[in-house]
Parts: sequence; C-alpha cells; structure tokens
Amino acid sequence: MQKHDQDYIKRKNRDTVFHLIKNHAPVSRAQLARMTGMSPTTVSRIVAELDEQGYVLESESVTSGVGRKAAWLTLNRAMVLTIGIELDKTRFRIGIMDLDGELVVLKEYERIPTETPEATVMHIQRTLDQLFDEEKIDPAKVIGVGVGIPGIIDHRSGVVILSAQLGWHHVPAAALFHEHLGYETVIDNELKARALAEHVKGRAIHSRKTALIRFGSGVGSALIIEGEIYRGENNSAGEIGHTVIDPMGTTCECGKVGCLQTYIAEGALLKEASKYSSITNLPELFEASRSGHVWAEQIVRKAMVYMGVTINNILCMYNPDSIILSGDIVEKFHEVRTFMDEGELHAMIWEPLLHSFDIHYSSLEVEGVVLGSGMLAQKKFFRVTH
Amino acid sequence: MQKHDQDYIKRKNRDTVFHLIKNHAPVSRAQLARMTGMSPTTVSRIVAELDEQGYVLESESVTSGVGRKAAWLTLNRAMVLTIGIELDKTRFRIGIMDLDGELVVLKEYERIPTETPEATVMHIQRTLDQLFDEEKIDPAKVIGVGVGIPGIIDHRSGVVILSAQLGWHHVPAAALFHEHLGYETVIDNELKARALAEHVKGRAIHSRKTALIRFGSGVGSALIIEGEIYRGENNSAGEIGHTVIDPMGTTCECGKVGCLQTYIAEGALLKEASKYSSITNLPELFEASRSGHVWAEQIVRKAMVYMGVTINNILCMYNPDSIILSGDIVEKFHEVRTFMDEGELHAMIWEPLLHSFDIHYSSLEVEGVVLGSGMLAQKKFFRVTH
Repeated sequence: MQKHDQDYIKRKNRDTVFHLIKNHAPVSRAQLARMTGMSPTTVSRIVAELDEQGYVLESESVTSGVGRKAAWLTLNRAMVLTIGIELDKTRFRIGIMDLDGELVVLKEYERIPTETPEATVMHIQRTLDQLFDEEKIDPAKVIGVGVGIPGIIDHRSGVVILSAQLGWHHVPAAALFHEHLGYETVIDNELKARALAEHVKGRAIHSRKTALIRFGSGVGSALIIEGEIYRGENNSAGEIGHTVIDPMGTTCECGKVGCLQTYIAEGALLKEASKYSSITNLPELFEASRSGHVWAEQIVRKAMVYMGVTINNILCMYNPDSIILSGDIVEKFHEVRTFMDEGELHAMIWEPLLHSFDIHYSSLEVEGVVLGSGMLAQKKFFRVTH
Repeated sequence: MQKHDQDYIKRKNRDTVFHLIKNHAPVSRAQLARMTGMSPTTVSRIVAELDEQGYVLESESVTSGVGRKAAWLTLNRAMVLTIGIELDKTRFRIGIMDLDGELVVLKEYERIPTETPEATVMHIQRTLDQLFDEEKIDPAKVIGVGVGIPGIIDHRSGVVILSAQLGWHHVPAAALFHEHLGYETVIDNELKARALAEHVKGRAIHSRKTALIRFGSGVGSALIIEGEIYRGENNSAGEIGHTVIDPMGTTCECGKVGCLQTYIAEGALLKEASKYSSITNLPELFEASRSGHVWAEQIVRKAMVYMGVTINNILCMYNPDSIILSGDIVEKFHEVRTFMDEGELHAMIWEPLLHSFDIHYSSLEVEGVVLGSGMLAQKKFFRVTH
C-alpha cells in the first residue's frame, strides 16, 4: 500500500475515534472498536495518542454485566481552547473559543492601516498576552490560532498571496503568527471562515449545501458542502465578483472588463451616485431614494436587480439548499429584504430552482470570521492535514 | 451510536475493502486487516459478503515465510458487466462495459422523437436482447444499467423531472427500465455522466477538480470533485447556461431575461446569422466567416468572446485545476482552438487564476455519456446508497 493511502487511513481512523468520543462520551475502548470495526489494537493506539496530548479523560467504573473494570473515555473539553482572529485594514478582532465553538471572549482593536505584517502580528501578540491576563486564561490550553484575512490566501502554505485591503503581497502570515504567538496557526480567506461559522453556528446549521453571499466593498461567495469548505484548487472558488457580466462593460479594479462587482459593489454604487449628488455612503443613498430622488431610486433599484442576478447565478452554479446573505446593504436597508422576500426576486430565478432553497440573513455579523477562523484552527489540530 | 452512523461506517468499510482488493490484488484477509486497521472479523464479514455475490475469487497458496496457507483474494472481473445508455431525441446508444470501464460493445440506434417513454424503453429492451445474442454476452453477468438523459433528472428517485429534448415530464424512467430490462437502473443528467467519464477515462484523469463545459443547443457544465460528481441539492449544479449576463437582454427559452445561453447556444448564433444569410448550420457560419463576410466574422468573434466569459466564470466559481471543453463548436472549428490556446482567452481570465488550470478538449465525444452512465450503475451497485 502506498504511503499516501496509509496516512489517509490513519488520519480517517483518528478522526473517527475523536468524533465518536466527542459525540458518544462516555464510551469504552471496546465500544469504540465495535462502533468502528477497527481492531482493539488500532483503537488503543489512537486513544493513547489523544490521551498523551491531554485531550481524553479516563474514568474507571465497574460494568454491570460481568463485573470487569472498563475505562470510560470522555474528551477533556476545558483543555481545548482556540483563538480566532479577524484581520482587516483598520481593525482586528480576537476571540477565544472552547471545543464546542462557544466564544469565551471577543474583543475588537484598531489597526494602523500602513503598519507592516510583522508590526501587526507583534501588536496582536501584545494584545493577546494582555487578554490572557485580564480574562485569567491559561495560555497552555490554547491548541492553535486561526486568522481570517480578506484576499487570496493559500491556506495550505499559510501565505497571503494578495490582500488589497491589508496591502499584503506574498506574506508568510501563518509562519509570522506561529513565530510570535507560539501557536500553530492556520490562515484563510475571511469569507470562507465566515461561511463555515454560519453553517455550524448560524442559521443554516441543517443545510447540506450552503452558499454565503456577501455584498460589500466587493461581492464574494463561499460554498460549504456537507460541512466542509469548498475551496477549489487555489482556495479561490466563489469569486463571483469577478464573473463577467458584460464583456463590453466597465473596467474592474482587477483589470478585466464587465465584472459583476462593477455593478454592485458599494464603491460602484456610490460612484454612480456621485454623478448626481455629493453623498458618500449607503445610508445617504437609501435616504435620497426614500425621499423620492429618481436618480437614487434607480441606483437602488439597479443594485437590487444585480443582487438578484447574483443569487440566481449562485443557484445555477452551486444549487445550494440554503443561501445566506450578508453585508451592510442586506442587513441595514429594509428595501433589500422586501425585494428578496416579496416576490420580486422570484421572477429572476431560473424556474426549476425556484423552490429549491431557503434564504437566510447572516446572524453572525460581528463574530462570524473570528468563530470560523477558530473552528479552522480546531480542525487543523485534530487532523494530520486538511 | 445512531443507525445512520452504523450504516455509514459499514458502507465505508465495504467500499474500502472492495477498492483495496481491486487495486492491490492478490491480497490476503490479514493484509486487508493490516492495511485498513479493521479487525479480522470485520474484514472476513465483508469479504464473505462480496464472495457470496460472486465478485471475489479466492486462490490458496503457501506463503514463503512460515508455510501457512493463506487465501489470496482477487476481484472476479469477468463477472461484472454494466450497461450504459445515452438517450436523446432522435437516437440512443447502448454500451456494455466491464469492471475496468472498458467498452465490450457500443452501438447506436435511431429513436422516433414522438414515441412514449414506455415505447422507448421497450425498444431498448428488444435491442438489448438482440445485442446479447449477437455479442454472445451472458445477461446474468450484468449488474445494472445506467442511463444518461438530457434535462433535469432526479437521480435519487429515478425520475426525469423535465427533458425538453425527449418531451418527458415527471417520467419515472428508472422504474420503467427496471421493469422492462430486469436490472437495477440508475438515471442521471447526461452531462454529469459525461463529466464522470471524462474524468475517469479521458484527458483529466489526474485532476482533482474537473469542470466540463459543453457548448451545443444550450450551454452546460459539470463539476467533478475528487472523483465524485458535484450535484447540488437538486442535481442541477452547473447550469451555467441560465446564469444571467444581462438583466435587460434577450428573453431565454426558460422565460428569464439575459441568460448566458441566449448569447452562445448554437440556435442563438444561427438565429443571429439568419438576419444576414440563409445559412442553417455551424459549418456554413464558419465558412462564411472564413470567406470574409463581416457579419459572420462578428458572430463567430462574439461567440468566442462569450465562450471566454463562460470559461472565466467557471474558473471564478469552481476554481478547477482542469477544464474540459466539449461540443461541436469546440471540436470542429480550428478558430475556436486558436482563440483558446493562443492568448486571446488569457486576457479574459481573472488574473489570479490565470495559471491555475489546464484546458483539455473532450476525447470521449461518442462514448462519453454511455461510459459515464455505466460507471454510475457500477457505483450504485457497490454502495448501499450514493
């Protein structure tokens, strides 16, 4: 058998045992062997590994039937904390969560947009040390760090390929965090982390195929299939903002012509509005529309139509059972919800898929990226690779 | 442990053992236990099941080391045939393939476009009986039938929800085939079957994420992730032809406005051409373009631009490592290959993904759907569910 196959089976077996202990505790080694079909030797080896690392608690008790002593295994939940970090241009958020994905603490801090990657990581390190003190958290319980970053992120090598927001280009961020914080660190695209959190903790928990769409400074999406992030080959799947809508259209910041996000990103809407008025943000645009300014009504209307196009196109490509909408324009302006919920959207959806999905609104706005990043750190820890 | 978990583990274990025998034969039960970490009892139970059904051959031999007899297991390849059928408006194709996916026979027959589903299935039954006779194939070796059909196919219930080409609407096709042919039958969307075949037997065999794009009477795509068809919730993922490109554009046959396929489907190109000339097919259109007719040059040019849009959008959404292009327009006109291969396409691709994929051209034009459908029948047989 090839080395690759062996590793794969080992990893799967460890995963299976860990999840069975997590979900069926207290449980004995013999029960684990029966449940999994693994040999007692295999089970014992895996349990010994988890035990050595402190993640399993054993308690002895007399079984009722034959009077033999059996060791009952449970997970040492308090032993396992992960840190989730959301990193953006002007701020970062730090969350500390337990094994069940509950946030013990979540705080937000300012970031200087021009600081170097190293300065940012050292800033986070000092902040985290302080947080451990304030919250009386034992740093030894932390098993890993997850960081959600906007941009193109190579989650495997831990390198930020390009983050326009942070101004980072080929930055080995995971290694920097590891070096300064002292924990194994996984980095990922923030939207993928957010989608994972929305799936596990948010409104689409029972969904088997969840698509998250976020409207903001760009338009992005992420797909969760059976609880796993679909990444594609370069962790870039879901970049719907750069699907082309009109090859004769407006030039996008990416250099291509007619990308979807040139129609619907916040900047595009405000730029259009600036032709008619001196407004500078979405609330002013919607206010102008509500006051009956025809130019504002048309921009808002057009924005909603292209949001409908986005949803239809996600449905056609991913055929999810749930769509989660997020971003300021969705969450803060009732016109958008009315458009989505009261039939106008329906006319824009390919008919065979009309009744195939639910629409949810993001419920994890502030903590989404932090939670998802922490979950990714947890997943990484409990697997050899991922 | 829940029943669901038990079934899942049983199925996975059976799958694992089957694939290890298939790929590592000859192999002993003890080796299988070592390879998988399963108990000898579990391995023996699974082998006994496979043996009972006739799929495993045992041969005894003396092992060199200790002189004990060990039974070597191999798969009984000749025992396992599947039938793949491609069903279309004016014809059907029948293929019979072995366990390794080699076609023993492949034949094409005419179909009367107006005949009922029952008449079609009975026609296929008669044809198949004749084929068994002619080719001296023992019908008892056939483990199942797979049928690839254009349209929206519920592969789980075996119902053709809608096939415009066949004129079928809510037809329980799998049950009809089962009843008349006597074999377990799986039906699926033809493009998904084709993509599976292209992945397994065609040019993208080492790809981990393969996207097939087919340009024809419509535009469709299918995604294969790690060897499995990505179906979405209703087996409708990949309907890129109905992603909207221009919400103020041309009305599509689906009733929506501005679907991608209104720009690029063969019918759309020929309709556009009919404004200038009496041509009726693609070869005439390309011939007119080659002869320097400006209108034809522009239609061909526009078609290629929208094929570029299609490819970019597939890349952004699925981020595959391989794209397989198929359909007459790709395969028969060198202009299209020149466009794809000589840089023009590159300017239309989102820059971060420019070097993330290979383009292949379909190599299984005639046998693709038949092969893929047969593979689906094989998969169904070797799993409890799929």
